Amino acid sequence: MEGKTIRKVYIDNAATTPILPDVREVMVPYLGESFGNPSCLHDWGDIAREGMGVARDQIAQLIGADAKEIIFTSSGTESNNLAIKGLAMAQQSKGKHVVVSEIEHFSVLHSARTLEKLGFELSLVPVDKYGVVDPEDVRRNIRKDTVLVSVMYANGEVGTIEPIKEIAKVTKERGVIFHTDAVASAGIIPVDVKELGADALSLAGNQFYGPKGVGALWVRRGVRIMPLLDGGIQEGGRRAGTENIPAIVGLGKAAESAAANMTARIEHLTHLRDRLLTELPAKIDHVVVTGHPRNRLPGNASFCVEFIEGEAMLMLLNSQGVAVTSGSACTSRALKASHVLIAIGIQHALAQGSLLFSFGMENTSEDIDYVLEVLPPIVNRLRQMSPLYSKFAKASKGGK
Amino acid sequence: MEGKTIRKVYIDNAATTPILPDVREVMVPYLGESFGNPSCLHDWGDIAREGMGVARDQIAQLIGADAKEIIFTSSGTESNNLAIKGLAMAQQSKGKHVVVSEIEHFSVLHSARTLEKLGFELSLVPVDKYGVVDPEDVRRNIRKDTVLVSVMYANGEVGTIEPIKEIAKVTKERGVIFHTDAVASAGIIPVDVKELGADALSLAGNQFYGPKGVGALWVRRGVRIMPLLDGGIQEGGRRAGTENIPAIVGLGKAAESAAANMTARIEHLTHLRDRLLTELPAKIDHVVVTGHPRNRLPGNASFCVEFIEGEAMLMLLNSQGVAVTSGSACTSRALKASHVLIAIGIQHALAQGSLLFSFGMENTSEDIDYVLEVLPPIVNRLRQMSPLYSKFAKASKGGK
Repeated sequence: MEGKTIRKVYIDNAATTPILPDVREVMVPYLGESFGNPSCLHDWGDIAREGMGVARDQIAQLIGADAKEIIFTSSGTESNNLAIKGLAMAQQSKGKHVVVSEIEHFSVLHSARTLEKLGFELSLVPVDKYGVVDPEDVRRNIRKDTVLVSVMYANGEVGTIEPIKEIAKVTKERGVIFHTDAVASAGIIPVDVKELGADALSLAGNQFYGPKGVGALWVRRGVRIMPLLDGGIQEGGRRAGTENIPAIVGLGKAAESAAANMTARIEHLTHLRDRLLTELPAKIDHVVVTGHPRNRLPGNASFCVEFIEGEAMLMLLNSQGVAVTSGSACTSRALKASHVLIAIGIQHALAQGSLLFSFGMENTSEDIDYVLEVLPPIVNRLRQMSPLYSKFAKASKGGK
Repeated sequence: MEGKTIRKVYIDNAATTPILPDVREVMVPYLGESFGNPSCLHDWGDIAREGMGVARDQIAQLIGADAKEIIFTSSGTESNNLAIKGLAMAQQSKGKHVVVSEIEHFSVLHSARTLEKLGFELSLVPVDKYGVVDPEDVRRNIRKDTVLVSVMYANGEVGTIEPIKEIAKVTKERGVIFHTDAVASAGIIPVDVKELGADALSLAGNQFYGPKGVGALWVRRGVRIMPLLDGGIQEGGRRAGTENIPAIVGLGKAAESAAANMTARIEHLTHLRDRLLTELPAKIDHVVVTGHPRNRLPGNASFCVEFIEGEAMLMLLNSQGVAVTSGSACTSRALKASHVLIAIGIQHALAQGSLLFSFGMENTSEDIDYVLEVLPPIVNRLRQMSPLYSKFAKASKGGK
């Protein structure tokens, strides 16, 4: 009389990670008696301010920054909006042209589109078939009136890590401010702003086992930025609003933990990723690996499965207890082909079948066994319903 | 051998409230296994989305709105920034003039200043000595090109409740969008958007025993707003970024609790407030009550204490375990005279001695006994060090 329990396998850590128990633990007091507002000049305020100070140091340490250069925000999206709009607006007396890559997250791309509405011009830098930005393409797009370049550190959808140091060299030569969106990479792979040569960098807590509702923007000392949120003088006048202390404290702890365990985590994730990248295409026909073959995020295994709708595949996988994403989380409900996949040259029809596995610390090799067991029949079932696949299958037979 | 324990008395609920235990309780699962991203098409996403849906209904119910009209933000400050910038920018084809009152929170005032940098014109409506905006003054300031009026529901510093319905009548007659910042009042006193006639309303969780890191903006259906945070299609495309689910769920619960217990809470707070408003000036000479004598927030008892620096008074009160604020929390670290006090006609010197008690549910009559015991000697001590007071005391003596 054994009931059938479906295995629950979460491989969607690019959408959001679970929160580490010791991160949650440091947060809980700030949801209880340590509830003060850090702007206040009394003990309750002091306790909150001290917690925030520790977190600021922890985040700074993770990325090799000075604590004073950290601005806490409410998300990676807010960090990117603040960076793109705030840096461009602060430099606009020098010019009104910005350069971003085609595969940026929408929080960068759409912020740049908003700048266009405010009179800026925008140039988009293309990528190659692996999603790599060529620093020379960045150089070609920089003009006399360019005030900001933004290229992401790594792409969360296809995993490709960009040549940020080389791009920073170009922007430095040309005297242009350079921002990099490291939301998909900070806390996961080593990111050191001193080595990078960038001027601003975004990160988010829910990408490395910290809480939602908090992100950070690092801005190099001396670089001017216009606030996005006006009001009080929090964050040195660069971001107003009562600080989300529990989340900030959690972000700090997650940063500390990431720094301490990074090598082991990378090793674990890389092993899982490489196994799936190799074995999935061997189990299922007509599967394409997307992103760079080597320079990719350790937990990212992204594919396009031909003759299939990603949404249907997700739902059937979900019914088997497996959580993954097609495209990015932020766009999955928009049901559009990913702009990232289009940018690397994937056809629309194939992009519809995109499938992103983003591994986390809790995943095991058994999770991959399970995916390799349940996915092939799902793909077969969906393909049997696909008119495109029948046409293709007939044509193949006819050719024999 | 009894050690002396200092009584701890928190009367700074305008800065931030403690979190209710049952609010914390509904949040905790979302810091644990219910960690999903609501944009995701799988069980983890569904659980997060459901929690957010419940919270949206709870907030809508608190203010008599439709759930679809609620936009979750990261704070009252973000709600106000989104309202002022987003509403004005969305209407700018009709005109570029906005009207706000002189006593708005800085998140409204400074947002309006940012609009000025973007080519808008700004008119400030004055207030009377109680901090009340005259709806006829609003009418006089509306021009043909006015696209937005913003007047706060109640002022958190001096407690005055504004004649919002009357102001809404004026804006409606003139066909101008009307926003009200209800951060200091929603969840504390009855706020019903259907009765009000406003078009947009801001609120924040940490003002009524909910968590920090979350606020909401209500925007009447059909009113266009430009997003402040660009990116994914969260919140109907009006506010991008991975949602802070634990805080949103907590905000919802706090709203439910506020709606259920509002009458009892108001009664409790009003009793404490009225006692302090009466007894403090009877115990200490040269104390002025600020704000409206009757139409004021139930927990707000605000004063100016002559011949004194508010900061020093706060520190000495803190050393006695009492947490209060001078001016508002957001500006207290700026050490400037409050713009609200200046607007109601308080002289700079007197404004320096402002003292705001904002009661909460946890306060008792014994807390007032304690304040009335410890404050007079502190004031006397500070006045003895004040050159202004010695001059005044001498003059008084000389006058006898």
